[in-house]
Order: sequence, then structure tokens, then C-alpha cells
Amino acid sequence: MAKEYTVAVVGATGAVGTKMMEQLAKRKFPIGKLKLLASKRSAGKELTFNGQTYTIEEATPEAFAGVDVALFSAGGSVSKALAHAAAERGAVVIDNTSAFRMDPEVPLVVPEVNPQDLATHKGIIANPNCSTIQMVAALEPIRKAFGLKNLIVSTYQAVSGSGISAIEELKDQSLHFDQAKNVEAHVLPVKGDKKHYPIARNVIPQIDVFTENGFTYEEMKMINETKKIMHAQELPVAATCVRVPVVAGHSESVYIEIDQENVTVEDIKKVLQEAPGIIVQDDITSQIYPMPIFSEGEDEVFVGRIRKDLAKNNAFHLWIVADNLLKGAALNSIQIAEKMIEDGLI
Amino acid sequence: MAKEYTVAVVGATGAVGTKMMEQLAKRKFPIGKLKLLASKRSAGKELTFNGQTYTIEEATPEAFAGVDVALFSAGGSVSKALAHAAAERGAVVIDNTSAFRMDPEVPLVVPEVNPQDLATHKGIIANPNCSTIQMVAALEPIRKAFGLKNLIVSTYQAVSGSGISAIEELKDQSLHFDQAKNVEAHVLPVKGDKKHYPIARNVIPQIDVFTENGFTYEEMKMINETKKIMHAQELPVAATCVRVPVVAGHSESVYIEIDQENVTVEDIKKVLQEAPGIIVQDDITSQIYPMPIFSEGEDEVFVGRIRKDLAKNNAFHLWIVADNLLKGAALNSIQIAEKMIEDGLI
Repeated sequence: MAKEYTVAVVGATGAVGTKMMEQLAKRKFPIGKLKLLASKRSAGKELTFNGQTYTIEEATPEAFAGVDVALFSAGGSVSKALAHAAAERGAVVIDNTSAFRMDPEVPLVVPEVNPQDLATHKGIIANPNCSTIQMVAALEPIRKAFGLKNLIVSTYQAVSGSGISAIEELKDQSLHFDQAKNVEAHVLPVKGDKKHYPIARNVIPQIDVFTENGFTYEEMKMINETKKIMHAQELPVAATCVRVPVVAGHSESVYIEIDQENVTVEDIKKVLQEAPGIIVQDDITSQIYPMPIFSEGEDEVFVGRIRKDLAKNNAFHLWIVADNLLKGAALNSIQIAEKMIEDGLI
Repeated sequence: MAKEYTVAVVGATGAVGTKMMEQLAKRKFPIGKLKLLASKRSAGKELTFNGQTYTIEEATPEAFAGVDVALFSAGGSVSKALAHAAAERGAVVIDNTSAFRMDPEVPLVVPEVNPQDLATHKGIIANPNCSTIQMVAALEPIRKAFGLKNLIVSTYQAVSGSGISAIEELKDQSLHFDQAKNVEAHVLPVKGDKKHYPIARNVIPQIDVFTENGFTYEEMKMINETKKIMHAQELPVAATCVRVPVVAGHSESVYIEIDQENVTVEDIKKVLQEAPGIIVQDDITSQIYPMPIFSEGEDEVFVGRIRKDLAKNNAFHLWIVADNLLKGAALNSIQIAEKMIEDGLI
């Protein structure tokens, strides 16, 4: 009989946590015992998993005793407070927040891109930012084949990245279509920031709060995490991150310059078609290209609109779409755990 | 008494035509006589302008006799069929379609950018594509001050660019929020193309049909028109054009490289603050940046999120927003006519 593991999910009722539970069930993750943990406020609530009812317990350091894999998705402050305590008790923590992503002691992993980094873990592995995961998943095969020397991305990000309350806000505002300018806004662009703006019939060029250099934290995450995951500190990366009135599915308009000259669009397509977790949707004669609404619920990263720049022979444009709650979050976390089991790291 | 002009509006009931009528009234354009022209199908309908009722006449070559200024916004085929006939009868044609934009005999004009080109007209002046106008209006002051040597844009374009039926489609789909994947789509991305996709809760990376090189016509318009307007055939320009579920207001994520080194964000802001028709909305400490929903009904081009690239000293990122039916279409057309009157060209 295959080994089974004690799995803890911290934040199981959130937008990502819900998807984690679905993925654990769908992928038949070898769970021996499941513990659902949350803040004191949510403790006592019940959740169903594989037909069995679980009561959510309060997430305390002691609750992680005996846990093999702890999946954290309850916000950065919860991870900061409890991830080390869980690791000290022997759990492998896979953290979906930004708390430890840039910590040099913590591997930041997309299993298709840098699985080798998992072996260096000291108890905590960070799951990258949603918009970063799908981009590096699509670009790493190109980088491996042809080199990569410049990267500029503009994003079209779904509101589910801001949680369930942001989805509700978009829905409420959409149903008041004609009053869109005057609808109430309480969540977007950033729940804890000073001002809120409508998202229905609008796009908001702010995701997360601003840093001192004028870029937002979301943009800096894409820039810094991409370099860390690709082990490419010298790679120029620029990002503009924009929230759009889409429920699920982040889209990205990506410009790259590669090292090699004379690479064709067909060469790029071939490399992507052979890459794990990537689906090329690119047939302009039939209007085939990725769109976020059709990525919802799908595991893969979709790439299309692949075309050669008209001015630079070594430059290409791509359109990359994925379900931000799946490959961008929950699925990638579970894939990290699966890969660690496969490699004998858990 | 100031001179008054006989003005014809071709396509006055369309999304842009309606805005042209509003602008003519709002800006007190010196109209002596107003003629509303349309296809045979719309002839006979009545429209009100400045409290007076006008009956739409069929647009025939003869209808342009005595017309000083003919504003065309009834689709490329109508312009191709009638613009020369109007010009031959002495009218100055200001054409809002793509029919003549790349014709070397036809000036393509944004009055703040290349007013000097108006003097070379041979009866027809082309109004540029909406997404091009706002971009060149914001970039030309920067180009004049610091030079411009590279330009990459990703757009977030409103559905009103596809006409009134596209606005209705977005509204209908928005009101069926929970069925968004299965809503009927008949208009977007391109009314006459083979397939149609939902726009509510979605973004569509296709505007206009595809060309052979993999770019859409919309993208090629931005590339070619920008070079023509700026008289910069050697400037590398790349565009990715994307439709978003916004009613009015195109947004653009723009990356530029300038000739001069050591230019600061403050230098760029100062140049833009002094530029005609531009409003800088850029105060990240107060979450001030342009958004399409707040550009609706406004004449200006709004620029924000101005920041220096982290890798290249001569590169900057900007976020440019304008009402695509106003500065992007109707307003720019009227401004062309006003400038021609000012310069004694009409």
C-alpha cells in the first residue's frame, strides 16, 4: 500500500483554500489524515471533503504536531506567525502567501521550472505569485531552448486574486450595470488601502499597494520572483499589473527578447507544445487564442498570439492565460507536494 | 460676425456620430447649415440638434453640394464610396474610418501632434484610430523633449469602439453574470468575423481581423499610424490590442525608450503637464492614476503610473487613458476642423 500523509490545510474556506480542497480530492492526493485549520473566528465551522465532514480547528503551533504537509493559504500574517512553528514540528510547509517568497532560505518553486530547488528546503517552500507562475511556466521552455534576455509584461488580472469578497463586489456592481460610475466599492483595488474604486466596467492599474520606486508590490513580485525562480538575477524584467473585471483567469501580454537570432514562431510553438502543463491555443485563421473565461477550472497554462516582433528579429510577443486560483495558486501548491513525495523529500 | 460653415455629418446615429453631434453643440462649432446624411435605410429618421429637428437625408454624391466640412463616421465602405465625391464638390472631408489613413495623399492628424500636415490636404483628412490618438498625444511631448527610440504598447480597449451593438452586448451579458460562460455573443470581437465570444467576465485578445503576419489590423493601425503621425518611419513600434469589458475609455500600458539618458520621472511629468490636452493623474501616495470609467465624457488624455524602468536608464512605463469616442474619435475630428478654420484651410 502506498504511503499516506497527514495533511493540514490552513485557510480552507478562502478562495484559494477552497480550490486546494478540490484539487486534493480531484488529484487523489494520498491523504491519511486531514486537518483543517483556521483562525479562532472560523474554528468550529464544518467542511465536507470526499463525503466526510470535518470540523475546522484553531490554527495553533501545537495543531501541527504529526502533520506531514501543511498547506498555508490564510494570508501572510498567519504564515509568518505559524509556518516556522509547523516546520519545527516536522511538517513540510507549502506556503501560498508572499511571506517567505524572497527569503533566501526558502525555495520558490514551479515544479515544471525549478524542481531541483525543492531539495534545498529547510521546512518551508514558497508557492510563487499567481501571475508569476503562469508566466515562468510558459517562458522557461523558451529560455531553455533559445535563451532569454529581456522580458516586459502587462497583465489583465482577475478579481478572484483578491479573494471571495472581490468576486462578490464585481458581481454586485455588474448587476447595477447602468450605475457603474456610482456603485459602492469596498474591496478593490486593495482591501486595506485607503481608496476603493469600481471594477465593473473599469480596469484598475493597481494590484497590491505601491512601493517607493513607483511599482506596486504585485509588479515587484513578478519582477523579483521571476528572477529567483529562473535563477536569472541579471535578466531585465518589467511588469505593469492591472485588475480587470474578470472573475477567474489571469491574462498576460508578454514581450520577450531571446538570445538566439533567426528563431521562428514555429520554433517557439514547437517548444511550447512539448512543454509540460502548457497548451498552445494559437490558430488565428480560426480565431483560436486563450481567453480567461475559458481557462476557468482548467489546470494548464494556455499560450497564443505568438508572433515575431516586426522591428527586432530576436523578439516575440505572447498572450499567456491561466486560472489564477489553480495553476496560479492551489494546483501549483499541490504539485509541489506531489513532486516532493516523488523525490522522497516528504 | 464670424464666418459660419455648412457641415455634413455622415453616420450621425452611430456611437461616434452621436458624440460628434454632442461635440459640435458643446464646442459651439460655427455651423451655418447642418446636413445629416446616412444610408438609404436610415434616411427619413429625425434627430434633434440644439433644439432643432433635422431629417436624415440619404448620403449621395449630390448631397455634398455646398458643404464646407463633411464629417464621416459611417464605416470604411461609405467613406470609400463617397469621400472623394464630397471632396470633389468642395467639401473638406474629415474621415473617422480607416479607409484613407495610410493613403500617402491623405494627412493623418492629431492637432496637438502634427497640425502642420493639415496644410498638405487634397480634400480628405483622416482621423487616426482611437487607440493611436491618445497614445501619440501623450508620447509626442516626450519625443519632442527627449527623443523616442522604442515603443511597446498593450491595450485595454472599451467595447464602444465596436459600436452601439457591442455596448448592448456587454450590458446584456453583464446582467446574466452567473451564466457568463454560456451567454450568447453575436458582436465581439468582430461583427463580421466567423466566431464570437463573450466579453462580460472576459478579455478578448483580438480587435479587428487578423493580418498575415499574426498581428491584427488594430495592432497594425497602431504601429503604422503612429509612425505616420510622428513622421518616424524608423521607430520600432509594437502593439498588442485587447478588448476588455469596459463601456468607454481605452487604457494603454506603454513602454518607451527615449534617446536621452538620465531623464527623471519628474522631467517626464513636467513635459506632460505642460502639453496641450494632457492631464497627469499620478500620485501613488493617494492612489491617483487614470481609469477608463472616470475618463468617460472627458476631453483630455490622462497619463499616470509614470515610472522609470528598473533595468534600463532610458526606459519608462506609462499608463494612458482617454475616452475612445471623444479624443479617440469625435472630439479629435472636430478639433481637426477647428484647427483648419484657425489656419484658414477651410
